Amino acid sequence: MTNTSTGSHQALKDIVREDGRGERFVWKGPHVEADVTRQPLSEAGYKSMLKFAEEQKLADAIKSLFAGDSINGSEQRPALHWALRGNAAHLAKSAEFAEQAKACGEFATKVRSGGLGYKVKTILHIGIGGSDLGPRLIWDALRPLGHEGPALRFCANVDPADFAEATEGLDAETTLVIVVSKSFKTPETQANAQLAREWLISKLGEDQLMNHMAAVSSAPDLAQAWGAPADRIFPMDSAVGGRYSVWSSVGLSLMIALGNEAWAEFLGGGSDMDVHFRDAPLEENLPARLAMMDYHVHSQRGVPSRVVLAYAHRLRKLPDFLQQLEMESNGKSAASGRGVKADITAPITWGSVGTLGQHSFHQLLHQGTDRSAAEFVVAMNAGVNEGYKANGQSLLANAYAQAEAFLVGRSEAEAEVQLREKGVDEATIKARAPHMHMEGGRASSMFILDDISPRSVGALIAMYEHRTFAYGMLLGINPFDQWGVELGKVMAEEIDNAISGTSTKDRDATTLRLIKKTQDARA
Amino acid sequence: MTNTSTGSHQALKDIVREDGRGERFVWKGPHVEADVTRQPLSEAGYKSMLKFAEEQKLADAIKSLFAGDSINGSEQRPALHWALRGNAAHLAKSAEFAEQAKACGEFATKVRSGGLGYKVKTILHIGIGGSDLGPRLIWDALRPLGHEGPALRFCANVDPADFAEATEGLDAETTLVIVVSKSFKTPETQANAQLAREWLISKLGEDQLMNHMAAVSSAPDLAQAWGAPADRIFPMDSAVGGRYSVWSSVGLSLMIALGNEAWAEFLGGGSDMDVHFRDAPLEENLPARLAMMDYHVHSQRGVPSRVVLAYAHRLRKLPDFLQQLEMESNGKSAASGRGVKADITAPITWGSVGTLGQHSFHQLLHQGTDRSAAEFVVAMNAGVNEGYKANGQSLLANAYAQAEAFLVGRSEAEAEVQLREKGVDEATIKARAPHMHMEGGRASSMFILDDISPRSVGALIAMYEHRTFAYGMLLGINPFDQWGVELGKVMAEEIDNAISGTSTKDRDATTLRLIKKTQDARA
Repeated sequence: MTNTSTGSHQALKDIVREDGRGERFVWKGPHVEADVTRQPLSEAGYKSMLKFAEEQKLADAIKSLFAGDSINGSEQRPALHWALRGNAAHLAKSAEFAEQAKACGEFATKVRSGGLGYKVKTILHIGIGGSDLGPRLIWDALRPLGHEGPALRFCANVDPADFAEATEGLDAETTLVIVVSKSFKTPETQANAQLAREWLISKLGEDQLMNHMAAVSSAPDLAQAWGAPADRIFPMDSAVGGRYSVWSSVGLSLMIALGNEAWAEFLGGGSDMDVHFRDAPLEENLPARLAMMDYHVHSQRGVPSRVVLAYAHRLRKLPDFLQQLEMESNGKSAASGRGVKADITAPITWGSVGTLGQHSFHQLLHQGTDRSAAEFVVAMNAGVNEGYKANGQSLLANAYAQAEAFLVGRSEAEAEVQLREKGVDEATIKARAPHMHMEGGRASSMFILDDISPRSVGALIAMYEHRTFAYGMLLGINPFDQWGVELGKVMAEEIDNAISGTSTKDRDATTLRLIKKTQDARA
Repeated sequence: MTNTSTGSHQALKDIVREDGRGERFVWKGPHVEADVTRQPLSEAGYKSMLKFAEEQKLADAIKSLFAGDSINGSEQRPALHWALRGNAAHLAKSAEFAEQAKACGEFATKVRSGGLGYKVKTILHIGIGGSDLGPRLIWDALRPLGHEGPALRFCANVDPADFAEATEGLDAETTLVIVVSKSFKTPETQANAQLAREWLISKLGEDQLMNHMAAVSSAPDLAQAWGAPADRIFPMDSAVGGRYSVWSSVGLSLMIALGNEAWAEFLGGGSDMDVHFRDAPLEENLPARLAMMDYHVHSQRGVPSRVVLAYAHRLRKLPDFLQQLEMESNGKSAASGRGVKADITAPITWGSVGTLGQHSFHQLLHQGTDRSAAEFVVAMNAGVNEGYKANGQSLLANAYAQAEAFLVGRSEAEAEVQLREKGVDEATIKARAPHMHMEGGRASSMFILDDISPRSVGALIAMYEHRTFAYGMLLGINPFDQWGVELGKVMAEEIDNAISGTSTKDRDATTLRLIKKTQDARA
């Protein structure tokens, strides 16, 4: 079943007209409000989702999460990202986490106050995946708060063009390099850490090297071998997965850049959402209800993708961040084999920043094949801090207008009237009006933040984490492993060796042709 | 019909094993080679697609394009983007285009040689959609060639946070502002042009203002009213659509930054692809064959999305660019109403830069619900210019490995063997192996460039343009209009006025609630 037929478009228009949706389908959580009145979820459908969540024992799963049970079954571990934000006094790990946070905070203060013996103007943050996307998102979101701290630059790709660009015009004397890698063996990060080391030596000499290095890693010996001083290596806990780790020492660059006060607020926003998710009954629980909606829209109705439209320049990395969080968590079906009954597990998450998409792919969202559930994110204080309130209001008006246009559409007859009002001749009207027809009946949600502050953004990210977890529970999937990732790593090494001529393992015809072509081109 | 069932995964594995695919399904065009051996297109399927293209009179449509016929029917215009690259002596417009290009080139030389009376170190490029995405893509792709020219900064969003960030640390005395807007009325661009004007005045005073401004627009009076000197306003032609316009005066910032020589090469690459697309018979025509494949994969087999995996840091904006080019061109079905028979027209185009996606959403591509056709882009000279050939080779090996892993997958039995080799205990093996199962049989294409040079990149972009055009012709869609875009514009203005209290037009309950909430929050 999909919602792509004309019938279901009309059905959505009918559902939306039902009374009381503003009371029933505007869901509030700490610092975030979700208006899902325009989602294809009727009163009856919603009740049946609640029943399904009870059958799937979602409430028990939430209890297990916060009890620190070993809910990451395939890796036999608990998932403790929430414990980094507080509310974890009952856990044995709690003291250890507090100590790690303290060490990071002290180092942040030291760097900000000139304690390294030089002013750090830039942090070069090297990491990939979960060690990269969260810090990038939060830096863009909150950087106006960082005007007294260093700026961040990021480098993630093994393509050396990334490192070249990240260091363009950079002054090594005022740069601190922070490498983030749990194993300190991730090939991309290893390669860039090596380039950074060479770069520092070439600019500052061997004796200054170590004073410009720090690391976040669970392999302190390897980090030390790279050159980081022992007292500047900050651990990562195995019970915190990469895509849930921005709250941990992985956020060290952010703590330095934004300062400890803003960082505490960010954690506080996450903690507020934790308490809500832990304590609110399912029928008032924002992340849980969103997960039920996701299950209904994607897994039951078959909508294969979700487009995230962040109407806030500062949240422009949100789609990238959510791609990892959601697709890496629930983009599974094998894990299932036993368990997952749904045709679609995680939808494809994509999107961009509004209003840019309006001048690009929104054409398809209005008139193309309808395969996406749209999700808007807005902040009520748009433009206020920058001193341009009218521009901010225009930004919000655009978000509301797109959502309304998705729903109401425009008939051919309406298009004819509009053209006639503009004085267009009848022959042209007849030719053009069919092209202006927009079916409407396209669903959307509106997520509303009061502002883009550390606390709101913290709550927003924690909301997405919990929604993803709850959706995984409804699907019967373990959202905390990622076994689909490592096969490619092994094969990349084999193929790399084959290009170098040091592996002769048999491969399929296409790969062999590509290896040969690469050897010829690069000889 | 979709390719998501186990049956079709096995079918792809079988097709790929057929003999002679390396000869049949490696398609060459100027500067670009497409290996589609791993797409679900059999010899018979390919022949039937060729037949379909003949029935749809694709060859005639290509002739019409290059004859300058009025193929943009709903707007009653030809589509002449290709004529900006040459091969257009037979067109009346040809002389005019040459003159416009000459004026831009002369201005570029003037700016680069200090002819404005100050050294331009930065160009602040203001535009949105087609006036933004092309220049961003090409700047990132070719910026190493621009080391003698100014650097580019971009500003597009009406959110004033965008402008604040674009001008952070910027020195007005060495900045040239270029505003690109055909009508000079696009709200976002208007808002930012106004901010730029205020910023220049506050930094330099009224008398210096004009010397730091230029415009690309078809409304010279409005551009002059903004403040651009008359001799620094460069026209745009109505027969060149925004998303096809990077080759025109829209690329002025690039001409200045990269220099006229690189620019000529870029146009030359596009022209090489034009000649191929114009002259090659369908069965040897790269863009035409790609369009046939798109029709087969998306419109016939029902795959709803395409993931673009650019394994080149310098091509990281390619997915954003293609989102506009493809989804705005063919993301239509109404236009149709009459004509389009396919269930899916343009697929959803999304993606990111490799290897970053491997540490993020590739999990879903390997083990999640299979709803995407994957498209890799690689350059044979990866890492060579940066002096790190080994890192570049690793980048290529990763692309090949992902494509192979998508196809071959891994059975539960293979996973068990791998775990046993690592010395994992039997109980853990039994629990973990099901999670490591990867079905395989997932399709991909590999696009291969010799290098990331102006000529190759020009050819690549022109290839995508022509492929998009040809796909539109196969669908019976006009790829050159975008009627889905303007309804939202009108509604945004109405809602903006409603928030300000100057419009009382009746709207749906959700919008009214959002308007009220916004008024309260911003009072």
